[in-house]
Amino acid sequence: MRAKITKAAAKKNGIKTKRTISLISDGTVLDHIDPEAVFKIVRILRIDECDDQVTVGNNLKSKYYGRKGIIKVEGVFLTEDDINKVSVISPHVTMNIIKNYEVVKKFKSELPPTIEGIIACNNPNCVTNVEHIRTRFKVAKSEPLALFCTYCERTMHREDIEVRLIRK
Amino acid sequence: MRAKITKAAAKKNGIKTKRTISLISDGTVLDHIDPEAVFKIVRILRIDECDDQVTVGNNLKSKYYGRKGIIKVEGVFLTEDDINKVSVISPHVTMNIIKNYEVVKKFKSELPPTIEGIIACNNPNCVTNVEHIRTRFKVAKSEPLALFCTYCERTMHREDIEVRLIRK
Repeated sequence: MRAKITKAAAKKNGIKTKRTISLISDGTVLDHIDPEAVFKIVRILRIDECDDQVTVGNNLKSKYYGRKGIIKVEGVFLTEDDINKVSVISPHVTMNIIKNYEVVKKFKSELPPTIEGIIACNNPNCVTNVEHIRTRFKVAKSEPLALFCTYCERTMHREDIEVRLIRK
Repeated sequence: MRAKITKAAAKKNGIKTKRTISLISDGTVLDHIDPEAVFKIVRILRIDECDDQVTVGNNLKSKYYGRKGIIKVEGVFLTEDDINKVSVISPHVTMNIIKNYEVVKKFKSELPPTIEGIIACNNPNCVTNVEHIRTRFKVAKSEPLALFCTYCERTMHREDIEVRLIRK
């Protein structure tokens, strides 16, 4: 049973106990994820429904941000659109496409001009909260984030954001 | 950048690329989790809100069940109650309490006699679906699972189970 291995044995076997999540041979690595956003991203990108090998690390040490999350999906190649979609809840995500243990593509998330679905409008009277309508926001400002609801015309800020799972 | 390391370099550094998630020194390891249940358990046990280092693996190879999930939480010691609570959505979970890389306590989840909250009643007319009332089921049978709703007296089976996040 893996966890029975002692630190000494781990060292003897050359296991780097500092390495929290192993390498993947082929697939996608999302790095520098805001710790608050990691498991939301798992749900938004449906990584929780994926049949392929998935590893998620959270609250890992980060040189730049103090703490960060990482998501690795074996055999799945996410797109730039996928990452831009989640940049609204985690601005600094980087995506690495891995083939045979090499990074063949590296991409930094960018806020798209509009955000559809994913997040709810914080105006309880907004039609998107009353009827079954997909939310739609224009990104008015990226830093600090300002999102303009195209339905009720209210402006939301980062602290107002509540993830809504459109798939459910 | 971690993922840039080639397979050769990985071998040279003695990194076991077979080891998906590293050891933890002190904390809790949940093993043999049903792949469908892993991220539900993360939410039920509020591991997604945890500030400590968390690693989650899903669809990992399992000798007994084909595929399995693993959750490791550094510095957090879950209780037998926590694990029994989730046994309704994943029957074979084992919990290992780790101290200084050694398993100091091992526990196999058991279905408790009653299950409160966590799952919804599948009867749309049940009062727990109409008013803000915590669900309560008696475990009538464990294999195959039969849950008796103490409010509407309907019996549910495993395929009827829908996780409800009582915290939200």
